[in-house]
Parts: sequence; C-alpha cells; structure tokens
Amino acid sequence: MSIAFGIFSVKNGKKRLAAKWGNWVIDLYALAHLGHFDHLDIKKSVFKNDFLNDFIALGKTKTNAVREVSEAFLSNEQNLENQSFAHHATAVELHLPIRIGDYTDFYSSEQHAFNVGAMFRDPANALLPNWKHLPVAYHGRASSIFVSGTNFHRPNGQINASDTTMPTFSATKRLDIELEMATVIGKPNLIGNAINIDQAEDHVFGFMLFNDWSARDIQRWEYVPLGPFLAKNFFSSLSPWVIPIEVLAPFRTPAETQNPEVLPYLREENRQCFDVNLEVYILPKELPQQEFLISKSNFKYLYWTVAQQIAHHTVNGCNLNVGDLLASGTISGKTPDSYGSLLELTWGGKNPIQLTEGISRTFLEDGDTIVIKGFAEKHGSRVDFGEVRTTVLPTMI
Amino acid sequence: MSIAFGIFSVKNGKKRLAAKWGNWVIDLYALAHLGHFDHLDIKKSVFKNDFLNDFIALGKTKTNAVREVSEAFLSNEQNLENQSFAHHATAVELHLPIRIGDYTDFYSSEQHAFNVGAMFRDPANALLPNWKHLPVAYHGRASSIFVSGTNFHRPNGQINASDTTMPTFSATKRLDIELEMATVIGKPNLIGNAINIDQAEDHVFGFMLFNDWSARDIQRWEYVPLGPFLAKNFFSSLSPWVIPIEVLAPFRTPAETQNPEVLPYLREENRQCFDVNLEVYILPKELPQQEFLISKSNFKYLYWTVAQQIAHHTVNGCNLNVGDLLASGTISGKTPDSYGSLLELTWGGKNPIQLTEGISRTFLEDGDTIVIKGFAEKHGSRVDFGEVRTTVLPTMI
Repeated sequence: MSIAFGIFSVKNGKKRLAAKWGNWVIDLYALAHLGHFDHLDIKKSVFKNDFLNDFIALGKTKTNAVREVSEAFLSNEQNLENQSFAHHATAVELHLPIRIGDYTDFYSSEQHAFNVGAMFRDPANALLPNWKHLPVAYHGRASSIFVSGTNFHRPNGQINASDTTMPTFSATKRLDIELEMATVIGKPNLIGNAINIDQAEDHVFGFMLFNDWSARDIQRWEYVPLGPFLAKNFFSSLSPWVIPIEVLAPFRTPAETQNPEVLPYLREENRQCFDVNLEVYILPKELPQQEFLISKSNFKYLYWTVAQQIAHHTVNGCNLNVGDLLASGTISGKTPDSYGSLLELTWGGKNPIQLTEGISRTFLEDGDTIVIKGFAEKHGSRVDFGEVRTTVLPTMI
Repeated sequence: MSIAFGIFSVKNGKKRLAAKWGNWVIDLYALAHLGHFDHLDIKKSVFKNDFLNDFIALGKTKTNAVREVSEAFLSNEQNLENQSFAHHATAVELHLPIRIGDYTDFYSSEQHAFNVGAMFRDPANALLPNWKHLPVAYHGRASSIFVSGTNFHRPNGQINASDTTMPTFSATKRLDIELEMATVIGKPNLIGNAINIDQAEDHVFGFMLFNDWSARDIQRWEYVPLGPFLAKNFFSSLSPWVIPIEVLAPFRTPAETQNPEVLPYLREENRQCFDVNLEVYILPKELPQQEFLISKSNFKYLYWTVAQQIAHHTVNGCNLNVGDLLASGTISGKTPDSYGSLLELTWGGKNPIQLTEGISRTFLEDGDTIVIKGFAEKHGSRVDFGEVRTTVLPTMI
C-alpha cells in the first residue's frame, strides 16, 4: 500500500500535511515531531502548512523519502494502534491541498475532441487541422477550484441558441461535468527555458482527480473567438489527495502511436500513459443516497501524454511553477459508456440516460451529486485516488 | 500632483512599498516609521512587503488615506530635502508590484475587434454575433507577467500558414505588441456571488499599463477552438506603478452609447471611461537610443467599461481576488494612427511602418525595444502612469 499526500485539520486545529493510509489520515507533522524524518534535513514547519507547495518544492529526493519512510513505518500495523497521529478519515476535514498558481486545461483525449467536433461541426472533419500536431490547451481559472465536498450554485449567464436573435439571461440549462485528471507541477522552469520532453516527467509531482464543471449553453454563445470563459470558471472540483507519479510506476502502459508523426520537440522514445480506472457516478436528487455509474473511463485514453503537454506548454519559454495544475481535458474512451461528459453520454442531450425507472438525465438538475472515483489496480496492488464529490445547488438569484 | 503605488528596493535592501512622487521614489515604510500613518491603525509590516496585495486588502478607506496623507506631506517641498525616505528614481530598483492571482484578458475595444475580424474573416461581418452582447474575454497566464525593464527571448513554436500542410517549428516571425490597460482588483467577491454593476468600481484598486506580447503566426495555428495559448503566455509586460482609481476622478469621460441595448446585468446608469493618453514607441535595433512614436491611443476607446467587465466576469459566481488582473484587450481608436498592435498598424504585415530612412517594421526584430507610456492631463493637472519598457532578445535555441 502506498500513501497519498493532502492537507487536513481536526476541529479548531491548524492545517497540517496529511498522508492517506487506507482509511486512516496520518498527521505528518506529528510523524516529523516523532523524529521519523530527522535524517532528511527538512524543517518541521513544512509539515504544518496550509498547502503542500513548500513540501513539494523540497524536490523529489526528499518527498519520495518522506513517502517511503512513512510507508515503511505505517506498514507495521502495531505502529498504528491507539496513536494520536492516526485519525479516522471521518474525523478530519480535508482541504484543497495545493495553492494553485496557474491552471491550464488541455484537450488531449482524441475521442472527446472527435465527439465534440462531430456534434458541433462535422463528423467528417471532426478534428480541427491542428489537433494531431499539438496538444491543444487553454488557460483556466485558478481561483474557482475547490476541494471535493464543496458545492456550488448553478451559474447564471448569457444564453443564445441561435446567432441571429438576442441572448437571454438565465441559469444554465445544460450543466455538465468533465471527467479529467490533473497533473501537479513539482519543479519549476525559468521563463525562457523550454522543458525538454525527456525531462518533462521530472517536473511532475503527482496526479489528482478533477471535475471541470461546464455550462454548455453559456459556452456555445461566448466561446468564439477566444475560447471558454464563464462556461467554465464558475467552479471546478479537485480531489483532496495527490498521488505521487513514482507510485504509478507499476501502472505505466504504452501510449497510442501517433500518426502523423509529431514535430521533434514532442517526440518520445517510449510513450507512456498511466492505467488508472476512472468512474463517474450520479446520485440523483430523487435518490440522493444511491450511486448510479454513468461512465467508466481511464487516464490512459490520452492521445497526448503528460510529458508532451509539459514540453508543449513550455516550448515558447512559458514558466511553470510548483503547484501549477495541468488538467488533461475530458477523458473519453472509444466506447459510448466511457465518455467523460454528459454532452457526449447523451449526445448533446438527445439521448437521456435512464438511471432507474422514472429517473433519467440529460444534463444535471439541482440537488444532483456527482462523484468521480479513481484507482489503479494490478496483480493485487492498488493505488486509490479517492474521490471528488460535488452537489449542484440552486442558482443564487 | 498625486502619488502612485509600487514596490522598490535599494541595493542589498528588502522590498518595500513605494510612492511615486514626480521623479522621486518615496519609501512608505519609512514614512510609516516616522508616524505619518499612526492614526490609520495599519501594521507597519504592511509597508515592508514584496507586493502591494496586503496593502490593497486593507480597503479603500485606508489606502486612500495613506495616499492623501502622503500627498499632503510631500506637497511641502521642504519636507523632501535631504530626506533618506526620498530616493531618486534612478537609484532604486522597481519590482512587479502585484502578486497576481488570476489574469483575465478582455477584448473590449470595438475597433480592435473589428480590425482583427476584417483581416481574418470578413470585413462585412467583422464582429462575431456575441461581441456587442457581452465583453468577450479569456483567461491568460499570470506566471509570465513581468515588470517593465525585464526583457524576453523571442518565442519558438509551431507555425503553419496553411491548414493543409504540416506545421514547422520556428521562432515566431510575427512578434507583436498589444497596447492595453490592466485593472487591479482591490476587493474580493465570494464564489457564487455576482458583483452588481453599480458596485463594480468598488472592486477596483487601480490601473496599470500593460503590453500583452503576441506571436501572431503561433496564434493563427493554435487558437481554434479553445483560444490563444502559447501565442500569448511566453511573456507579458506590466508597468511598475499602480494608479488608484480615485486619482482618475477628474479624467472620467462618458463612454460610447451601446447599441443594441445590453442585458440588464450589464446596464449602467452613467457609463464612464477614463481619458488616459496612451503612446507606443519603438526604439529600433538600428537606432536603439531613438524613440519613434508609432501609435497614439486612449484608455477611453473601450466599448465595454471596466464596470461591465467586472459585472460580466462575476455574473456566473466566479470569484475575483485582491491582486487579480483584468486587462482591457488591445485598445485601438478609430483612426489608423491609434491602432494598438502592429498587426493592425501594418494591416497584417502588408503595409510596413517607415520609421526613418532605411528603417521600417512590419513585426518586431531582435533588439527592438517597445515603450508604452500613459498619462492623463486636464486643466494643468497631470497623472503620470510611467512606462512599460521591454526589449526583444534573440530566441534561446
């Protein structure tokens, strides 16, 4: 079993670094005070912190050592009994673990780009000419990213189903999810200095689950020519735990061969994705205790690898900082049951999803809860990404 | 005369808050220690800071009081003589004054949107259907915004003049400027809470000069369907001084009447822009000491006011934080000598600008320096925005 990193607090307590260990939340500040990390030359104050950023900035040698020491210690069950550093997961509050500087959203799943292009443009030319030459991306909003368990109000905005009439002001009628993974940057590059694709993964601290909430009707009207804005920046949801990239070594899997061949700065000797199962559940307002699985996807369904995303992002000299977030874009597999958004699952709202008798959905209703879960599993070993859970509240006005 | 706020340091010294007073840089931490602000109940440490954010977060009552007390004190010339709190502007280093959380770039000048649409699409339908109904905007990159005097390397990237051939990798051949103003947010709103247009200006701390460097050839290929990315995020340049919005009261001027009428959340009783002269100079590599004026524009040439930008940005509940930056987009006036980018000034590179005999430009060359200056002037009173100065260095590879 391996640990994941997060930030927790107990009632009336300050925020501290946490390690997830099964159903336990381990207080890393307490472990530091017990001397477990003394040989690593890390200031103890790093573990008493509102965010993981200072810890991540120590570098992989130290953060991996903290992980390995913790795992070895916790693996002995006796070390966990009646210890004040070990909290039941239900007894603590988990917080947004990363102070996010800049957030970038990619568009790296071919099936997703194809589906959207086929719906909105032309199935015969669903992918735009640039799509197979570069990992398309845009900048998103960092301030409105919140941790799992935080809910949001259905956003208002301008909607116009036609381009020839006047827009109306309304709460979104096409509230959607986007099933994504987020990469947490662990090592900065200086402005002007591109990151070589062979070194790109050295800049990755780890991965999280991400739900990039989207208002499709607002998006349709606003997005030309400069891209999505209010359709996305009202809220995004992040899981509380960061899984270090090193933990995923057993789950590496060859990435799809790219055709046409990409430019040299994007070429990889050994293209790899990560085999992480992703599931989307809806708990409809009518049955708020019941989870209905609506999609099964996988982090490996990416045409553009994380290394390619980083090499591309920085090829112009753009500087990435510790704590920046690079999201994958919606991850859709080839079969319809693996599509990562309701837009695709219902094909633009045309084919409602029947959850149970009398309950179906195209887009989301107030009171609906969405849970994204992630886990990697192989030969009995399992890495649990936890979940990101969010409920849709009614609009504020 | 009024002061502007910034961050300075002297050699080997820590960063402190600065007030610009003519050609003097005034140490506000020193003024605080002399007791000038004692009646305002402000911790002195606020004035010894890497950024203005904590100061701005005190709120307008306090920041305006600091400004007024400082102005009254400095207006007496005797108070400035041989004082260690007053530095010659040439003796200090100025720094990026704002720790920028999120940066949004609007597209609020009609002439600019028209020019770009006419060049790239169709002069008969230059503005897209949404343009007159909402202030189009996109999220930009905060990490690559640097202060005046910081230079950057010409960015590399993918270029493809056609959509049917393979892209090439190259340094940009169409390096451009964008003459913009940036609004600094001074008061946050909570997630989910839209800012009413009548209160929008209460959320503005002040304004700065902004140069949103752009690589037009990279932009052309990458920007569909999600907007500009690497064409913009390699570098942006910000002036070192923030002019508080209250200082501009005498320079308010009626904004253009909007037709068609906008939705109620964007309607203003009394639409106002700010009459701030903006100038763009080039110092070509061949004559690096000589300034050639290539554009004269004005902050008032906006179809969408700052208040409308803020009301729109938050209408979906998006939260703005202290230190967020909202840039105006390129500000182009109606006459060709007032266009705010080389793309427009040279009409897509077709009409080179003749600077002097034997020296002309379409887009920028290595070694060229661009200086943007801004000032408001009326009845003998003048508010100086200073300048933002940047030199183009050769590509890194």
